[in-house]
Amino acid sequence: MADQPSPTAAHRRHDPEARHFASDNYAGVHPEVLAALATANGGHAVSYGEDPYSEHLQGLMSGLFGAEVAAYPVFNGTGANVLALQAVTDRWGSVICAETAHINCDEGGAPEQVAGLKLHAVPTPDGKLTPELVDRQAWGFDDEHRAMPQAVSITQSTELGTLYTPDEVRALADHVHGLGMRLHLDGARLANAAAALEVPVREFTSDAGVDILSFGATKNGALGAEAVVIMDPSSVARPRHLRKRSMQLASKMRFLSVQFEALLADGLWLRLAGQANAMAQRLADGVAQIDGVEILYPVQANAVFARLPHEVTRRLQERHRFYFWDEAAGDVRWMCSYDTTAEDVDGFLDSIRAEIGR
Amino acid sequence: MADQPSPTAAHRRHDPEARHFASDNYAGVHPEVLAALATANGGHAVSYGEDPYSEHLQGLMSGLFGAEVAAYPVFNGTGANVLALQAVTDRWGSVICAETAHINCDEGGAPEQVAGLKLHAVPTPDGKLTPELVDRQAWGFDDEHRAMPQAVSITQSTELGTLYTPDEVRALADHVHGLGMRLHLDGARLANAAAALEVPVREFTSDAGVDILSFGATKNGALGAEAVVIMDPSSVARPRHLRKRSMQLASKMRFLSVQFEALLADGLWLRLAGQANAMAQRLADGVAQIDGVEILYPVQANAVFARLPHEVTRRLQERHRFYFWDEAAGDVRWMCSYDTTAEDVDGFLDSIRAEIGR
Amino acid sequence: MADQPSPTAAHRRHDPEARHFASDNYAGVHPEVLAALATANGGHAVSYGEDPYSEHLQGLMSGLFGAEVAAYPVFNGTGANVLALQAVTDRWGSVICAETAHINCDEGGAPEQVAGLKLHAVPTPDGKLTPELVDRQAWGFDDEHRAMPQAVSITQSTELGTLYTPDEVRALADHVHGLGMRLHLDGARLANAAAALEVPVREFTSDAGVDILSFGATKNGALGAEAVVIMDPSSVARPRHLRKRSMQLASKMRFLSVQFEALLADGLWLRLAGQANAMAQRLADGVAQIDGVEILYPVQANAVFARLPHEVTRRLQERHRFYFWDEAAGDVRWMCSYDTTAEDVDGFLDSIRAEIGR
Amino acid sequence: MADQPSPTAAHRRHDPEARHFASDNYAGVHPEVLAALATANGGHAVSYGEDPYSEHLQGLMSGLFGAEVAAYPVFNGTGANVLALQAVTDRWGSVICAETAHINCDEGGAPEQVAGLKLHAVPTPDGKLTPELVDRQAWGFDDEHRAMPQAVSITQSTELGTLYTPDEVRALADHVHGLGMRLHLDGARLANAAAALEVPVREFTSDAGVDILSFGATKNGALGAEAVVIMDPSSVARPRHLRKRSMQLASKMRFLSVQFEALLADGLWLRLAGQANAMAQRLADGVAQIDGVEILYPVQANAVFARLPHEVTRRLQERHRFYFWDEAAGDVRWMCSYDTTAEDVDGFLDSIRAEIGR
Repeated sequence: MADQPSPTAAHRRHDPEARHFASDNYAGVHPEVLAALATANGGHAVSYGEDPYSEHLQGLMSGLFGAEVAAYPVFNGTGANVLALQAVTDRWGSVICAETAHINCDEGGAPEQVAGLKLHAVPTPDGKLTPELVDRQAWGFDDEHRAMPQAVSITQSTELGTLYTPDEVRALADHVHGLGMRLHLDGARLANAAAALEVPVREFTSDAGVDILSFGATKNGALGAEAVVIMDPSSVARPRHLRKRSMQLASKMRFLSVQFEALLADGLWLRLAGQANAMAQRLADGVAQIDGVEILYPVQANAVFARLPHEVTRRLQERHRFYFWDEAAGDVRWMCSYDTTAEDVDGFLDSIRAEIGR
Repeated sequence: MADQPSPTAAHRRHDPEARHFASDNYAGVHPEVLAALATANGGHAVSYGEDPYSEHLQGLMSGLFGAEVAAYPVFNGTGANVLALQAVTDRWGSVICAETAHINCDEGGAPEQVAGLKLHAVPTPDGKLTPELVDRQAWGFDDEHRAMPQAVSITQSTELGTLYTPDEVRALADHVHGLGMRLHLDGARLANAAAALEVPVREFTSDAGVDILSFGATKNGALGAEAVVIMDPSSVARPRHLRKRSMQLASKMRFLSVQFEALLADGLWLRLAGQANAMAQRLADGVAQIDGVEILYPVQANAVFARLPHEVTRRLQERHRFYFWDEAAGDVRWMCSYDTTAEDVDGFLDSIRAEIGR
Repeated sequence: MADQPSPTAAHRRHDPEARHFASDNYAGVHPEVLAALATANGGHAVSYGEDPYSEHLQGLMSGLFGAEVAAYPVFNGTGANVLALQAVTDRWGSVICAETAHINCDEGGAPEQVAGLKLHAVPTPDGKLTPELVDRQAWGFDDEHRAMPQAVSITQSTELGTLYTPDEVRALADHVHGLGMRLHLDGARLANAAAALEVPVREFTSDAGVDILSFGATKNGALGAEAVVIMDPSSVARPRHLRKRSMQLASKMRFLSVQFEALLADGLWLRLAGQANAMAQRLADGVAQIDGVEILYPVQANAVFARLPHEVTRRLQERHRFYFWDEAAGDVRWMCSYDTTAEDVDGFLDSIRAEIGR
Repeated sequence: MADQPSPTAAHRRHDPEARHFASDNYAGVHPEVLAALATANGGHAVSYGEDPYSEHLQGLMSGLFGAEVAAYPVFNGTGANVLALQAVTDRWGSVICAETAHINCDEGGAPEQVAGLKLHAVPTPDGKLTPELVDRQAWGFDDEHRAMPQAVSITQSTELGTLYTPDEVRALADHVHGLGMRLHLDGARLANAAAALEVPVREFTSDAGVDILSFGATKNGALGAEAVVIMDPSSVARPRHLRKRSMQLASKMRFLSVQFEALLADGLWLRLAGQANAMAQRLADGVAQIDGVEILYPVQANAVFARLPHEVTRRLQERHRFYFWDEAAGDVRWMCSYDTTAEDVDGFLDSIRAEIGR
């Protein structure tokens, strides 16, 4: 790769044309987000969140979720989730989640180490909790021998690429509230859910009874920005202190907040997520035509899970980067991102067809 | 402030001409760092550190600190410090630091919550530990009733704007190692120290016996990037796991790493820090001419601590933003940043003179 | 209940004839253990474990488990387990256990809060792990996104009253070691296992490859004493420090250690556990004759799990104290303790017959 | 030492006539406490605190501290303190204490590991905090960069053998409450304070504004029993859950509770503590007559701190066991316990005189 002329000593070291189906965080920063960083740059702004971009972000979040909500930008999804879960639990609390939940599988034990939280993981058929599944762990609230379930955490869209309908979220929230617990939504891919459901995001979050959510912008086209959104700030004590001691307080916070502005102000977030979703659908539709590949879960957002012969996967992986989901079973995960194109998908389908036909 | 034309929905909401003396993280991103973000953008790159920018960063760090070092980019200074301290302590360990250390005063209890670390804070005259001061807490290693001191943490440049000479660091490191402990250096302002000491940075870090350091880029002109640098990687187990579970693992890490490249590749980091240092010196020199203002510590980096009458401070704060350091005593802290100009300093000196002369 | 004459201001407040089937820790202290407390009393002895009783305990444990083992008395089972698990994990480690394990269900989240440990809970048919069941969670060791499985914890006898054979433990240990992990055995009821298996305890612990165990004396007839036994002390760093900071260091430790001596020196522990086991078997045999009660698991130690109609359980509970295990399913747990008598069992069987026959 | 006839396999292994001045936990169990254990023994009692002895203990505590208090027996002093401090802090809280406080010096980092608590340690001349000393750390409550001081912890009698008067406690409590914090009292030697002050214990605890205390029985003649006493139970959420997950829940709790009954029911606790105090006074009076030994702090409870030449200390330690407090300075600590006799003291004084006169 040749260097590009630039006013920086840093050199281009990657192929800007490369695209894979491994993860939606392989993608870079959307140009409008990058431009927003420049917009927020220059001069001095008060650090740690007392800047006009962070203040403006509150209004944007109010527009999405309700007038009274409060948003706390953080660095990454692990930070957002662990902060949010601390906000709705006490020292003696625990959290019910799907066995496939990112907080259970992919945070490296951060909920346990940072917050001392026990997770009650429940197996699910499709990554989605139901009131009945919650009930498998929602008991013993007054029994000191049992960590006290105080929150339920769901992911939207789920780690398996499926979606909760607004009614499903509402039923869960009602159930959870009826048990005296609170509902957290891990929205690392909130945009994909909003774009796919084609309803205002509040219909399946604040209006449906979600108490707190992790709002992810990184996979949606940001450089790196997530936010914890608290629907009723009067119900959560000292979120700023929790964020700081969870090591998620950015000094130059204007540059986190403005990334959200770039995505949210003009609907860009939905357009980008819609593109990722559409490409996953295109990929699923194409795969459905190929004998020897099985689609594992309903393709409702930007993920396609498939089962195919190991040797096909191996050969495919020589040409395209993606990961096994369950290597023993032969299950793989293909993710589409905001910058995945129809050409990318069609080329990948060609490869699948070629390898499976050998 | 008027909107600027831009390909983003985000609007400028701050005065790009404003400059203050409150904190070196009020400043924004240096243009060359911003350009570097664009350089690293486009296409797909493997996430979580397996990208060419993060790989290249290792070479840059080797050039600074020695061939064998390993660097782990993280989000912020709290994260860097708590990760580094975990890397050199066991579950039963504790850390000796100056009472004024950022880890003791300004991390919101993160070392205690996230890592379970006890800090033994030692009062110092100038923010600097000495072997004698370390000895006040370096005892009882085999006594289970006492958290075991396993590391000493120093800050360079210190929170009081003072500097350790290479010889002072070496004497401390020898002493610390002789006691079986390891030496951590909080380099949130490492660039300011390197620029001020005018020696290669390794002379007061790796070559002087520092075992691990937190290398700060954010205050030096980055958008937000720090790194933990381990001098002897064979001495630290599983830093990647510690980083992940400390919630400091960036998905799109290329954009952290390339910020370092922009600063380090061509000496920009030293030029920027040198400017901040020079402006602090200019401010100190000017203040020395003003009756009624007392400089509290040697001005060796980019901070000036001064004592002045409360009413003068109050009036000054109506025109310039800066913080009390010790309000009861009347002590204030003035920080210069990489973009502070001689005009900024001279204007501030005019204000001080005007207010003190009223 | 009338007061008994005694040289104490304390009065008897309970019925010393009452016996239940609710828990083996409803029982009191065996008279020989109480006498041992008096034996160790009087004069001054060095505190925190440097006393002759604690020293003598090492020899007793060596006799049971091997010359080189080291034992650390602690207060209770939770403390023993969390200390033991910390001893065989790093900060980034996690632990695989059966879903029914006490550490997963009944420690109130202590492993998570005190040690930051993530537990990977695996469903089992009978409370017992197998190599195949371990493999469901024993993967991803090098993946920083996953808490690193470093230990497997089994319970002997299990929470469901079942037993591992020595061969089963050995097969597990070999498998666990082959994966680079260590094997912990929760021996809250180690005596019941040893008495039931009728082999020297080392055959299913140290000789079978167990690396560390929690040795329970409390349920076996002690007032309150457990111990962590480390098979290869060179493999565990600073257990004394871990015990202290886990709040399990007794000042007057001689009184913990001598309880073990009273139980172990003359085989009392096996006689007491054998009585409990025999009574459980008697109860199971009797129940097997009663239509309408189903035994749920093999009765191999001192626990009987049964399913019976809810209304029968309710009526029985008016006369005998015991707990539901799974109220929805109608499952109950009946525990026999060292002081349960044949008359107790027969009387209880009479009650069951009477209630079920109504 | 010869074995004594006993109905236990355990043998006497120590000299029941030995007595030292090293620590008040070298002493054994007072015979009336041992008798009380037998009183509570026999039959089955509900475990985990639902027994008649634990219930009766509530009444005893109410008699001492006020009708509405709630007491939670625990195993040891570290457990009591860390439980109590969790009860009056949130996840983001911190605790102000004297630099010499046991929680700061002698808990092995348990407050930090188990509860994630930061301690703000304040140097004091005599182990006692004052409102002025509290103020050195009682600030920045709303500043997220600082762990939020939510509690002040004092020790009565202090680690230096000094006492707070009831008025001093009240002044501290008023000050602490005025700042929105709560006052914890570490009463590991509460009995010594009560005996020395010769006022009802509530005068310097509940009536003086103490919110929560750790009530130590172990040093007072118990085998091992401490309790957390909460003055206003409505102000503390879920103490039972906190006790369990702090690993301080005893299964056979009747044997913890009855130890308190033996000590409290008939004033035994004050008689025993009074003896210890009187012996410390006798020792101090005797030492005051000896040239070359300096008493360091007012002798107000059962501790004597003295400075004497190192070689004298070394020779004395060959005959009597006691510890250096500050070896560099030549400071030693002599503790008297409930079973220290006038002959013990006089013999020790003879030794001091002999060694200092060599």
